[in-house]
Amino acid sequence: MKRRTFLKGTTAAGVVATAASTFPTPALSQNRRKWRLVTTWPKNLPGLGTGAQYFADAITKCSGGRLSVQLHASGEIVPAFESIDAVGSGTVEMGHGAPYYWKGKAPASQFVSNFPFGLTAQEYNGWYHFGGGAALCDEVYEGLGCKFLVCGNTGVQHPGWSRKEINTLADFKGLKMRMPGIGAEVMRRIGATVVNLPGSEVAAALASGTIDWVEWNNPYGEASMGFWRHAKYYYIPGWHESGTVLETFINRKAWDGLEDDLKAIVTNCAYATNVVMLSEFQARSGPVLQQFINKHGVQVRRLSDEQLVTIGEVCGEVISEFVAADPLTKKVFESMNKFRTEQIAYSGTTEQDFFRARSLKYKWPA
Amino acid sequence: MKRRTFLKGTTAAGVVATAASTFPTPALSQNRRKWRLVTTWPKNLPGLGTGAQYFADAITKCSGGRLSVQLHASGEIVPAFESIDAVGSGTVEMGHGAPYYWKGKAPASQFVSNFPFGLTAQEYNGWYHFGGGAALCDEVYEGLGCKFLVCGNTGVQHPGWSRKEINTLADFKGLKMRMPGIGAEVMRRIGATVVNLPGSEVAAALASGTIDWVEWNNPYGEASMGFWRHAKYYYIPGWHESGTVLETFINRKAWDGLEDDLKAIVTNCAYATNVVMLSEFQARSGPVLQQFINKHGVQVRRLSDEQLVTIGEVCGEVISEFVAADPLTKKVFESMNKFRTEQIAYSGTTEQDFFRARSLKYKWPA
Repeated sequence: MKRRTFLKGTTAAGVVATAASTFPTPALSQNRRKWRLVTTWPKNLPGLGTGAQYFADAITKCSGGRLSVQLHASGEIVPAFESIDAVGSGTVEMGHGAPYYWKGKAPASQFVSNFPFGLTAQEYNGWYHFGGGAALCDEVYEGLGCKFLVCGNTGVQHPGWSRKEINTLADFKGLKMRMPGIGAEVMRRIGATVVNLPGSEVAAALASGTIDWVEWNNPYGEASMGFWRHAKYYYIPGWHESGTVLETFINRKAWDGLEDDLKAIVTNCAYATNVVMLSEFQARSGPVLQQFINKHGVQVRRLSDEQLVTIGEVCGEVISEFVAADPLTKKVFESMNKFRTEQIAYSGTTEQDFFRARSLKYKWPA
Repeated sequence: MKRRTFLKGTTAAGVVATAASTFPTPALSQNRRKWRLVTTWPKNLPGLGTGAQYFADAITKCSGGRLSVQLHASGEIVPAFESIDAVGSGTVEMGHGAPYYWKGKAPASQFVSNFPFGLTAQEYNGWYHFGGGAALCDEVYEGLGCKFLVCGNTGVQHPGWSRKEINTLADFKGLKMRMPGIGAEVMRRIGATVVNLPGSEVAAALASGTIDWVEWNNPYGEASMGFWRHAKYYYIPGWHESGTVLETFINRKAWDGLEDDLKAIVTNCAYATNVVMLSEFQARSGPVLQQFINKHGVQVRRLSDEQLVTIGEVCGEVISEFVAADPLTKKVFESMNKFRTEQIAYSGTTEQDFFRARSLKYKWPA
């Protein structure tokens, strides 16, 4: 838009008067922006860091450098958990993280991330794009001074690696678990001792027995952590994080100041990153899981239906408390929960029932 | 790129000599392209037509009109099934359709669409982005004179609406089924009489009993078809189309002639459309399915495990024949099939097992 205004300007009297050699440069640089993207991830962390890098590069490429985005890993400009303040205050223009990191400032952000026994990635995207989700997420982030865009997903995670076998829920009593978020509060009520540890200390704590259980994300994200050396039981299913949403948050004033074409580029690159990031987790976790099982002797263990029913009921209680405590959380949850009810029925006739069919034993080309 | 070259040009002697009023226009128009996108869908057909429109508009917006894409519904410029020729020959620049439409010209395109008992949308995206899929799809479309980009997905479809109840596979014998693709060949071998009908005639044929069964896609896409008036049994699961891929195909020379930023825009808008289109099917199918069941008395019926095992084995046979008949089909299938094996295990620990947990009976906030 500005570019065209500028060019129109050259058709007026000013053209001749402007010195030829200095004429286009200032106008061009006015139209070129350099933005900094702070992430809550180490540089090129498999899945999360690489996905954020894809996003930054996509914007730079699509805009032909008019909006050039430089990625900064956690700690380079601000510590990971201060990213939202850095962006909200305008110190940097944009960030990439996970919504539940901001629950201390905006409790509803925890639900923007999804919730236990919640939506799959595919369902969440339906809610976001066609179920009123985008507007609700923006409402939550308005209070943080940011524009929100969905910008990634891990898919269903694994609840974790355990040094001890779980036969009944009583085995969780006193178990020292490293697990964040709503899931952690649920496990605390089941009887576990929840331990908070920075990611960098988790593997050592598991090795020494300081913790018995560690929740991380999925095989691809866990490949380099070596948890299998110390914990042989790999539990499923991921009741606690059924499709954790990653985000970009953009300083509201910086966003409002973008020309329409750059807004469209940032938006579509965020949507593209959403699918690219989930694809990376999905594709790369396949072979890593096989390595865990076949090379490292990891044993996949299913929580039983009975255990899951109790966990599900405690989840419901914990969620009800969060919802009662904050009107915006209530608004977001009610929208997602209504959508969830329809999706349980619909996915029950599609993805869920297809998995049943595909898992049967039939002859298949090698 | 060219824009900058042009502006640099103005720093040279030509500035003063160029007439002020005509000066910027020709240069700008050199940099502005109008492309036509032919689709295989009626205008704004729910899900498919609306998704293609999203794609066209996204490119126009992101490029600030430098690449302006005008959508043409099927029949406006060429009939739906001639779209690939129109694009391959350069009559128009780009198209939107379903890869299996081109199986007569490139047999492997049928597998670019996915295959029965194949990959879910999420898994397919993993294969496409990180499993070697993008390069293989391009190899298939090279023979069609086109660049391929994944640009949509329906998710798991429903195999269809039946006027008659199916209790055993013997009930398929002589059943007049409207079903396309590999699934149709499978049902033919099971004993059904496969009938080919254009979409516009399907509902009337079902009403008159000319056909007993119709396969379409999913509730959102079927909402306006009124199949429930004539067929009360709605069968699952979608063994035949587990995540049907939609595509954009771009004339190879037109693609090669794009500046890098426009290539990035088209690519990322295609990826964005992939998630937006699937989201529309997913979100909107939820309430429509409820209407079918609660308002129109539709009965959802599951094919039994025993029936599915036989169908799965016949699928394997049919696929083996396709693979033996065409080296490129073999190459594509082998890549996808290896990926599928890993994904059956991985999704078995993630999405699939999460659905089990979520479907259990536990108290949950209303």
